[in-house]
Amino acid sequence: MKQTITGIGVSDGIAIAKAYRLETPDLTVEKLTIEQPELEIARFEAAKAEAAVELEAIRAKAAENFGEDKAAIFSAHLLVLNDPELESSVKGSIEKGVNAEYALQQAADTFTAMFEAMDNEYMRERAADVRDVTKRLLAKLLGVHVSDPSTINEEVIIIADDLTPSATAQLNKQFVKGFVTDIGGRTSHSAILGRMLEIPAVVGTKTAMESIEQGTSLIVDGTDGTVLLEPTDEETQAYEAKKVTFEQDKELLKRFVSESTVTSDGHHVEVGANIASTEDLPLADKNGAEGVGLFRTEFLYMGKSDFPTEEEQFDAYKTVLTSMGERPTVVRTLDIGGDKELSYFSTPEEMNPFLGQRAIRLCFEHEEMFRTQLRALLRASVHGNLKIMFPMIATLEEFRRAKGMLLEEQEKLQAEDIQVSDSYEVGMMLEIPAAAVIADLFAKEVDFFSIGTNDLIQYTMAADRMNEAVSYLYQPNHPSVLRLIHNVIQAAHKEGKWVGMCGEVAGDPLSIPVLLGMGLDEFSMSPSSILKARAQFAELSKAEWEGYIPEILQMETSEKIVEFVKAHS
Amino acid sequence: MKQTITGIGVSDGIAIAKAYRLETPDLTVEKLTIEQPELEIARFEAAKAEAAVELEAIRAKAAENFGEDKAAIFSAHLLVLNDPELESSVKGSIEKGVNAEYALQQAADTFTAMFEAMDNEYMRERAADVRDVTKRLLAKLLGVHVSDPSTINEEVIIIADDLTPSATAQLNKQFVKGFVTDIGGRTSHSAILGRMLEIPAVVGTKTAMESIEQGTSLIVDGTDGTVLLEPTDEETQAYEAKKVTFEQDKELLKRFVSESTVTSDGHHVEVGANIASTEDLPLADKNGAEGVGLFRTEFLYMGKSDFPTEEEQFDAYKTVLTSMGERPTVVRTLDIGGDKELSYFSTPEEMNPFLGQRAIRLCFEHEEMFRTQLRALLRASVHGNLKIMFPMIATLEEFRRAKGMLLEEQEKLQAEDIQVSDSYEVGMMLEIPAAAVIADLFAKEVDFFSIGTNDLIQYTMAADRMNEAVSYLYQPNHPSVLRLIHNVIQAAHKEGKWVGMCGEVAGDPLSIPVLLGMGLDEFSMSPSSILKARAQFAELSKAEWEGYIPEILQMETSEKIVEFVKAHS
Repeated sequence: MKQTITGIGVSDGIAIAKAYRLETPDLTVEKLTIEQPELEIARFEAAKAEAAVELEAIRAKAAENFGEDKAAIFSAHLLVLNDPELESSVKGSIEKGVNAEYALQQAADTFTAMFEAMDNEYMRERAADVRDVTKRLLAKLLGVHVSDPSTINEEVIIIADDLTPSATAQLNKQFVKGFVTDIGGRTSHSAILGRMLEIPAVVGTKTAMESIEQGTSLIVDGTDGTVLLEPTDEETQAYEAKKVTFEQDKELLKRFVSESTVTSDGHHVEVGANIASTEDLPLADKNGAEGVGLFRTEFLYMGKSDFPTEEEQFDAYKTVLTSMGERPTVVRTLDIGGDKELSYFSTPEEMNPFLGQRAIRLCFEHEEMFRTQLRALLRASVHGNLKIMFPMIATLEEFRRAKGMLLEEQEKLQAEDIQVSDSYEVGMMLEIPAAAVIADLFAKEVDFFSIGTNDLIQYTMAADRMNEAVSYLYQPNHPSVLRLIHNVIQAAHKEGKWVGMCGEVAGDPLSIPVLLGMGLDEFSMSPSSILKARAQFAELSKAEWEGYIPEILQMETSEKIVEFVKAHS
Repeated sequence: MKQTITGIGVSDGIAIAKAYRLETPDLTVEKLTIEQPELEIARFEAAKAEAAVELEAIRAKAAENFGEDKAAIFSAHLLVLNDPELESSVKGSIEKGVNAEYALQQAADTFTAMFEAMDNEYMRERAADVRDVTKRLLAKLLGVHVSDPSTINEEVIIIADDLTPSATAQLNKQFVKGFVTDIGGRTSHSAILGRMLEIPAVVGTKTAMESIEQGTSLIVDGTDGTVLLEPTDEETQAYEAKKVTFEQDKELLKRFVSESTVTSDGHHVEVGANIASTEDLPLADKNGAEGVGLFRTEFLYMGKSDFPTEEEQFDAYKTVLTSMGERPTVVRTLDIGGDKELSYFSTPEEMNPFLGQRAIRLCFEHEEMFRTQLRALLRASVHGNLKIMFPMIATLEEFRRAKGMLLEEQEKLQAEDIQVSDSYEVGMMLEIPAAAVIADLFAKEVDFFSIGTNDLIQYTMAADRMNEAVSYLYQPNHPSVLRLIHNVIQAAHKEGKWVGMCGEVAGDPLSIPVLLGMGLDEFSMSPSSILKARAQFAELSKAEWEGYIPEILQMETSEKIVEFVKAHS
């Protein structure tokens, strides 16, 4: 059946490839009383045999695609699968009269609890292996399909309910040509990732998972949010042509790569890149980033089985700083909690996680984890132009406490004769309304602010940006949001401090003129947005937009402000 | 074992009585394959017989305590219990080989789904009856204890994990002498209820439910948060004496009952009561309320099996307005969602309910429900001094939309020759940072603001006020919060509008001087706080505190502001 699905286009471009469904299988286990244990044991043995064949195949494919190093994890899984203690524990339970699924889950829970209790990184990794293998076996027993995104080895378009950061960590990005997800909006993880990878992404389709089967031919237009299923030859040709045009336009923008960002009246602003790992550096360079406005360090902590060591972190920070050279590099300390979880670190169950113990709040509760990151950053500081910032700061006490820990670690390092730069800066994310209102008090103590619009907007409007029922309230141009941003910039400049922005709004063509007029110093965005933004700045007059600001700040609604921007740019 | 438990004292006074545990039983049902259906049927019959005896006893007790009217519900339960169709459905499933619990739950799900699908209030009420009876039977079958708070007929102190609004609706308040809960803080439901009922309450004890058995003798000191288990005779005597002193002090405050609220320099402010139902009116009067600053209408919707009709609402509003006479009465339109749910109305599952579709946002989605309330309010408007306010307004469009609906309903009523007052006011709760920042724009269109500090603080600080891990960020005196409140008052006064406050802060002795200095016009609080506040105002000079405000608004932290207030009052 021919069909077109529409959603929100959140990363420009055209992709043409087959669908790869990323399923979240339901592995709920019921406890059943069974009468013939020998049948259950046979079922368990069959599942084990199937899983072994599958794991061998995945291991071989992974070795071929990524090398023996990355394939080692599957060898570890095979060891777990054949562990005689796990096997005898499962069989023992089955013989007492419960079903294989239940027996397996009980045994796995016991083993992982035991491993996790050990104060030893190696054993904790084994717990993660047990969990993975248990999932695979349960899927076999329950007869449900489990996706193995790490084995993708042809060009695909990923179809999913949603892309979680942990699912993304397993994707083989070189083969992923596009994303289509049922939920999400402009700032969801899949949208950000699409722009980061410069591949088309359509989110919020609601029906993709129910309409698109594995292997369906697809065309994804990330500009207007269209997804075509089983396109005709004519359609494919038309979109191939559209793709060529899109890429030519992109090519035209390349003349801006090595230029600095200057407005029509000669004012310079800095346009930087938001990056999530050292792997994003080539993309930032390719797009002519004048700095890194946001290095999201949580990705160093994801897709792993334990916290990254100080050494691992140091290596990553050093790589980024060395690569950026004199260009400013803003590193945000760990921002987990909220919607970002780590498999090896249990964050509390909260009724309202966005209003809960996340980011700096969680770091204060886990001081050693935080201090490890601070030491790695300080040690890396000599390799470039480092600016450290703390996320989710609401009160002066919090900023002072975080900075105090940083200085303590610096003293310890210096006592050990380890060099620390004397010119790194210490700032904060400005993303909580409280901080925006007292920006004048913070401005006396920080070196800089970086405005995080995603959170600032959701707290100011009291509307969860991931909740579609209230998404109409996620208004980047609401007069209250613009007034808060204006207040922050004024307060900072009064103290001679600079202000950046690393939320999605910094790269939005409808917001750029107003932010320029307000005097924002640095705009950090997905690398793929940089050249378009730079081209836009070249057309804008700072003096003109500065003149509009008083009028804009008196406007009553987002709608009026957006109309005004459209009419004047 | 002798023991003392401490928590947060949130409602003053001493209570001495026996513990009544309000349990939330675990009624999770597992599906089991059974071999002897006749045994399961016998278990089901036994549970039915036990439940019937219990229901008869409760019915008789309820009739004796509250009259036949309130007892009728238990007669309805007995009818459901003996329903032959339910019974044959359960037995049919058991005969197919499942356990009684599972069979009962399946049958109950089918019946309630059927009843709920009918567009008929009577049948929907039957669905609630089936659910209640099913819970009672499941508890019998699973051997767990279920509390029946509606049957309490002696003086008790309620012990619970937490008190939900729906649990409260079942409490026989005349016998409840105090509350002790394991979770919660100053603004949790149990705290507010304690102050409303003028009975001691201690929350956040963490261990009360695990330490206190049903019937344990207790002393609760709601002033310092102490709970004594099995007190000695000496302790009981000492606390009896303390109780007498407490009540004498309360008596002394009575001289303020019939006075108006005037500061030492002759400035008058209005001190009103927050009420939740018409039953709270005597308490408001007894404490000399100069108005009702918040009538929480959601309690009209709770503890019922369907929405209140327009007529029921009209009666309640008319009663409050008539009783208050010329004194201003501020009615807040329905504020459900967030942590407030209705059993007969399914609100969406949300990841962050406090940032979700609650209050006015939900009312816009369910227009007929909202318009019913507006009509009832408009019809009641001729009976007193009505001020209507809308909760959770973030944008001007929302206020205009809500007011537009109100005016449409008014026109319809007038077309039917139904009288509507021409002097009622229309205002809004000011509880979202966005609204506080653009209060100047709102002030041109509203008749008044009422600041809801509980929400305003939690959104401004991005900290869930119910989450203990971030409760240190719930800072009523944070400079950002005070600046926003100051901005709202200034903006309103510039347009000649008045500003009230109905959050917990309005009655806090540490906040009152600052709010007075800022020019807040109306302070609305738990009735039990009114006299103490009035006594405090009599000691304060408005001019003096007005003079301190510029200095206070430049202070860096809550701590400094609190120190200043303590030093100057």
